[in-house]
Amino acid sequence: MDLKFKLIKESSGARLGEFETKWGKHKTPMFMPVGTQATVKTLSPEELKDAHSDIILSNTYHLWLRPGEDIIDKAGGLHEFMNYKTGPILTDCGGFQVFSLAKPKDISEEGVKFKSHLDGSSLFLTPEKSIEVQNKLGADIIMSFDECPPYPVTHEYMENSVLRTLRWAQRGRSVHSKSDTQALFGIVQGGEFEDLRRLSAIKTSEMDFDGYSVGGVSVGEDAETKYKMIEYATAHLPKDKIRYLMGVGDPVDIVEGVIRGIDLFDCVLPTRLARHGNAFTRDGKINLRNAKFKEDFSVIDNECDCYACKNFTKAYIRHLLTADESFGQRLVSIHNIRFLTKLVEDIREAIDNDRILEFREEFINRYKKK
Amino acid sequence: MDLKFKLIKESSGARLGEFETKWGKHKTPMFMPVGTQATVKTLSPEELKDAHSDIILSNTYHLWLRPGEDIIDKAGGLHEFMNYKTGPILTDCGGFQVFSLAKPKDISEEGVKFKSHLDGSSLFLTPEKSIEVQNKLGADIIMSFDECPPYPVTHEYMENSVLRTLRWAQRGRSVHSKSDTQALFGIVQGGEFEDLRRLSAIKTSEMDFDGYSVGGVSVGEDAETKYKMIEYATAHLPKDKIRYLMGVGDPVDIVEGVIRGIDLFDCVLPTRLARHGNAFTRDGKINLRNAKFKEDFSVIDNECDCYACKNFTKAYIRHLLTADESFGQRLVSIHNIRFLTKLVEDIREAIDNDRILEFREEFINRYKKK
Repeated sequence: MDLKFKLIKESSGARLGEFETKWGKHKTPMFMPVGTQATVKTLSPEELKDAHSDIILSNTYHLWLRPGEDIIDKAGGLHEFMNYKTGPILTDCGGFQVFSLAKPKDISEEGVKFKSHLDGSSLFLTPEKSIEVQNKLGADIIMSFDECPPYPVTHEYMENSVLRTLRWAQRGRSVHSKSDTQALFGIVQGGEFEDLRRLSAIKTSEMDFDGYSVGGVSVGEDAETKYKMIEYATAHLPKDKIRYLMGVGDPVDIVEGVIRGIDLFDCVLPTRLARHGNAFTRDGKINLRNAKFKEDFSVIDNECDCYACKNFTKAYIRHLLTADESFGQRLVSIHNIRFLTKLVEDIREAIDNDRILEFREEFINRYKKK
Repeated sequence: MDLKFKLIKESSGARLGEFETKWGKHKTPMFMPVGTQATVKTLSPEELKDAHSDIILSNTYHLWLRPGEDIIDKAGGLHEFMNYKTGPILTDCGGFQVFSLAKPKDISEEGVKFKSHLDGSSLFLTPEKSIEVQNKLGADIIMSFDECPPYPVTHEYMENSVLRTLRWAQRGRSVHSKSDTQALFGIVQGGEFEDLRRLSAIKTSEMDFDGYSVGGVSVGEDAETKYKMIEYATAHLPKDKIRYLMGVGDPVDIVEGVIRGIDLFDCVLPTRLARHGNAFTRDGKINLRNAKFKEDFSVIDNECDCYACKNFTKAYIRHLLTADESFGQRLVSIHNIRFLTKLVEDIREAIDNDRILEFREEFINRYKKK
C-alpha cells in the first residue's frame, strides 16, 4: 500500500514530511511507542491519544507466540483486538526478537530455527512465515524479515548476512497478500560498514518498497558508530519514501537521527524507563525513586502538558513507585511518551523554521548539562 | 463532624439513606473500593468516578508506614496527595492490619506492639496514635482504634477485648483534633456472641459517634455466623446514624448485610479478584484466564456499562492477563468495581420499591446458579 509520503521540506539534512493511512494524515518526524504484546504497557488507547501518540508498534514475534496470529485474525486484526482505533499500527518482522530473545538459533538460507522464550518449544521463522503472520495481524505497516546480527561481526559475516537479507526481502515481498491495505518496508542492514550499508540501501531500494527501515542501529555501538550507520544508509535511500530507524528512542538519538534524514522512530525506552522510575525532562533523566523527591510536591516537569504533570506530584509518584503500585509506572509511562511526542513536535517546528541545527545544540546542551 | 445522615426509608430491614460531606450528598447503601496505599490498585481517580465509585477507603496502617502521615499532611492531606477530588475518603484505624499482617504482637491496655511487615522494625500503635495519624491523613471519615480478634476466641477473651476496645474508643475520641472536618466512627466488636455484640453496640452508641462500624465480620466465619454477627450489632445501633460493615464486599454478603440494616461496605475483593483474573457477573464469578475464553470475542458482561465492557473482549483481556500485562488487571478491576456500584444502585432501587426481599432472591438464585 502506498503511504503517499510527501516530503514537505528538507533543512540541514532533516526532513519534514507527511504520510497517509486510513486513520488520517500523519506528520513526520514521528515517534512510535511500543506495544510488545498488543498493549503499550500499563496504558489505554485513550491515554496514548492523550499523550499525542498517533501510531504504535507491536511485535510480531510476541504475538505469533501468544495469543497467536489466528486469534488476532479472527478478532478482525490488531486494531479490533486491542480496540486501538485512533491511529496506525506498525508490526516488526520478528527478526530482532528471534536473534535477541530466542537463542540459541540456527540460521540457514531457508530461515531461522530457534526456541520459544516462553516454553522452549522449537520454532522456525522464514521470510514467508513472517509476512504471513503480519498479514494476519493486519497492521497498517509491516516489515520484511531480516537478520539483525550482533555488533560487532566481521565484514565477511555481515556481507553474507546483507545478501541473504536481500534475498529474504524478495521472498517476503512475493508472498505479501495484503499489499492493498498493508504497506511493506524493506530493511537496510550492513552494520558499521559503509560499503555494506550502501549495498544494502541501494539493492533494497531497487525492490521499490513502500518505505525503508534502518536496522541494526541499537545493538550496543557507541554513539559515533551509531550515527555513521544511519548516515551510510540514508545517503542511498530514495527521498520520496519514508525512512524508519528501528528501535531507537533516546531523545538525543532522535534529534541526531532526524538530522541524518530519519522520519520515524520506535523504542521501548519511555515505558521501560518508567518501570524503573526514570522520567525524561528537558534537563535530563531523573529517577523518581530518589529520596530527594520524598517531599517534592512539584510535578515531574512543569513544561509538560501530560496527564501526570497536570495532576500528580513527584512525592506522590515516588510513593507509588516505592510501594510498587502500577499506577506509578503508568503515570511515568504517560509522561515519558508525551516527552518524546513533544520532542518530535518541536523538531518538526524547528525544521519548518530552518533551525534544526540550533535546536539540536540547545536541546542537547540542556539535556546533557547535569 | 456530623454527616447529616438522613434515613429516607426502611423496608424489610434494609435502609435507604443519604449523608453529606463537603464533596456532596451520597446515597446509601454504598460500596467503597479500597486504596490501600493511597491508590486503588491500577486505577486513576477518573476511572473510579467513571465506575460510579463515589467514595474510597484507604489504610492508616499502610500509609503510616509508607510514605508516613507527615508527608501526606504536608501535601495537604490524602485528597491532595492522591489528587482524588471527586468524593470522600474513609480511613480505617490500622487495627485490622496490625492484627492480621504484623504478627507477632503484644496487646496491652496501652496499645499494641508489633513489627512492621515492611522492615521488621518495632512499632507501637495506641488509640491516640491512630487518631493522630488519621487526623494528619485528613480523610472525611475516620475510625476509632479497636482490637479485631481472630475467629473463634473464647467468650472470656472476647469480653475483655470488647471492654478494652470501648476504653480505647473513649481515649481516641478525646484526642480527635479535627472533629469539625472529620467524622469519627465507633466500632462494634463482640465476635459471634450476642450478649457481647449487644454490649459493644450499646456502650459504643452511648459515646455518640458520628457513625458506627461493625467489625470482625470478615475473619473466617461461615455465612450463617457472619450474618448473625451483623444482626446482633445492628439491632442495638441508633437508626439515625450511618452503619458501616467493615471489610465485607462479596456480592451476596452485601445484599444480606443491607437486609440487616447496613449502609456502607468496603472490600479489596473487586481489585484482588481482578489481579487473579476473576470477574463478577450476575451469573456468578468467571475466571478470564480460562482457556475457553481464548477466542471469545464477546465482552465480560453485556449488561454492564463499564469501560472494559464497552471496549474490550474477553479474548483480549484473557490475552493481557496470561501475558501478565497490567492493563488486563486494570480492565477487570474497573469491571468488578462497577459491578458492585451497580449492585448497590439496584439495591437502592429495590428498597425504594419495597422489593428488597424479592431482589435478594432473584439476585442470589442467579448468582449462585452454576
